[in-house]
Amino acid sequence: MSSTVVLTIEALHERVEAIFSKAGLNPVQAGAITRVIVAGERDACKSHGVYRIEGALRTIKAGKVNPDAVAELVPQQAPAIVRVDAKGGFANSALELGIPELAARARSCGTAALVVNDAAHFSALWVEVEALTDRGLACLAMCPSYATVAPTGGNKPLLGTNPFAFGWPRPGHQPYVFDNATSVAARGEIELHRRAGKPLPEGWAIDSKGRPTTDPEAALAGAMLPFGGHKGSAIGTMIELLAGIMIGDLTSSEALEVLGTTTLYPSHGELVIAFSPEAFSTGRAGNPLSRAETLFEAILGQGARLPSQRRFLARAKSERDGINLSQQEMAQLDHFLDRGLDAV
Amino acid sequence: MSSTVVLTIEALHERVEAIFSKAGLNPVQAGAITRVIVAGERDACKSHGVYRIEGALRTIKAGKVNPDAVAELVPQQAPAIVRVDAKGGFANSALELGIPELAARARSCGTAALVVNDAAHFSALWVEVEALTDRGLACLAMCPSYATVAPTGGNKPLLGTNPFAFGWPRPGHQPYVFDNATSVAARGEIELHRRAGKPLPEGWAIDSKGRPTTDPEAALAGAMLPFGGHKGSAIGTMIELLAGIMIGDLTSSEALEVLGTTTLYPSHGELVIAFSPEAFSTGRAGNPLSRAETLFEAILGQGARLPSQRRFLARAKSERDGINLSQQEMAQLDHFLDRGLDAV
Repeated sequence: MSSTVVLTIEALHERVEAIFSKAGLNPVQAGAITRVIVAGERDACKSHGVYRIEGALRTIKAGKVNPDAVAELVPQQAPAIVRVDAKGGFANSALELGIPELAARARSCGTAALVVNDAAHFSALWVEVEALTDRGLACLAMCPSYATVAPTGGNKPLLGTNPFAFGWPRPGHQPYVFDNATSVAARGEIELHRRAGKPLPEGWAIDSKGRPTTDPEAALAGAMLPFGGHKGSAIGTMIELLAGIMIGDLTSSEALEVLGTTTLYPSHGELVIAFSPEAFSTGRAGNPLSRAETLFEAILGQGARLPSQRRFLARAKSERDGINLSQQEMAQLDHFLDRGLDAV
Repeated sequence: MSSTVVLTIEALHERVEAIFSKAGLNPVQAGAITRVIVAGERDACKSHGVYRIEGALRTIKAGKVNPDAVAELVPQQAPAIVRVDAKGGFANSALELGIPELAARARSCGTAALVVNDAAHFSALWVEVEALTDRGLACLAMCPSYATVAPTGGNKPLLGTNPFAFGWPRPGHQPYVFDNATSVAARGEIELHRRAGKPLPEGWAIDSKGRPTTDPEAALAGAMLPFGGHKGSAIGTMIELLAGIMIGDLTSSEALEVLGTTTLYPSHGELVIAFSPEAFSTGRAGNPLSRAETLFEAILGQGARLPSQRRFLARAKSERDGINLSQQEMAQLDHFLDRGLDAV
């Protein structure tokens, strides 16, 4: 075991932001993508942590993201639609721009949707979800990715891992949040198995001939499988329709075609739908936030867990004790900072 | 094999509506619930067909539905929320009242939601979904049911089978529609296994001690399991939050508490969210409806199926050749018509 280095959250933020600035990202994009990566590392959500920096740098180097882009709100949309044009930049600053406006529209209309278009997409949806639960709103978030998942009954990649996330506000507690790939596993997890040289659990993937496989390399060359059989496959398809086609942005298979590789971050959009529990419960008995606590207590009372609890525990620990990085991870951060885009 | 009787769709409608009228339902409720049951039978969706009449009659007889209720639109809600008070009647006429208004709001706001409150709930969500896809809108529909499903990691019924349905319009084709229980199986399917004396597939249910079971009786006394493990359990929980608690209506466990039985139709609400593809794609390249056809062709092209196709084939057959009912089913309809509420 190599020894680890402890950094405060702020120190890690400063270091990652410096890497992206050096790589040529403008301040608004560098700050926003850094917030997601540091949040991932802070929450021990390694699949969205510092290991993602390399892919982002490769995407910049390949010219598949506009490092100077400043996202803009698109005027004159329908009252319950907020649209942000990311102008080819990373999605994160576009989301940060759109979320306060989405929250305002959800409060005034009851429900509203945020559309982000033309983004180089890297995000953890729970970041957007928590930004809305922090504002007292419930929300759904979803996006395509690139085509790596076969629909149930098929044998070729067509759908993305298409995450589906949901949040519910819990004043005084961490929110109720789930953020699940609609594939059995997230592609990041298959990649982590590959790096660790570990076989995949059965049922995660098929090889390029459509046969079940536990070999991460074969899975990456073949297709992943949807979670929950035909029901998960249908939800993955719904996400292509709503968060790709309906919002006028690329599907997972179009994103892959445009990019020609799964090693860079794909170009596509994202859809976030917010709900005001206050508006939806107007005139009805009972406070929805306190009634929800009764439901959560009943779940916990029978020994089941609420989603994201491991992440929130890791967050509390990181906030108290700082973030642990391996010597290898630290060396890589130094290398990225030193060499910029030449490091990838 | 007993012989079967063939009825036109109209003849079956007339017969079922007469049963409900005789049972005391007012015309608006009798017509609406009959449309759902006949649509279920027409589509060979037996779990929502004539076998459901008995439960509806029992619910009327038990005084758990208001047969005189006339649903009303609740005025002065937020611009993107349409609320219908079912006033204790069956949900179907409330949904029929709300859907045209929901469609209008979704067109003007971009997205909007329909809330139905205080309904005796029996419906197939695909009926609402298709009413919206017929109007050129995409939509999501969801509702609680009564507590019969244990959350993943738990061992007692808490969640309902909580269906989650989605539709996408396909001019010139039947729409893309799925309507799936968030349990592994719909409760109606377990009930059909019980009636047929057939064991359940493994993984559907646990008994009252929390042990896996394939016995339908033991499953009905125990708990069903969510589809797709913790991911399906999270979606089922989301439905309790959005379509129960947020809309100020009962959760699945509250509905069961109020009713004290799962043999009557539960009192709760429903949430339907509609999206205007036209509004969401404003200013973007490509027509979303034709782009969606490319996705569907790619799914079909690799040998996978679109959901609801079996139902649409049955519909085409019923529209052409009429609906087949068994002698036993016909005798039961006669019995209901003859005896009214004394038949149950």
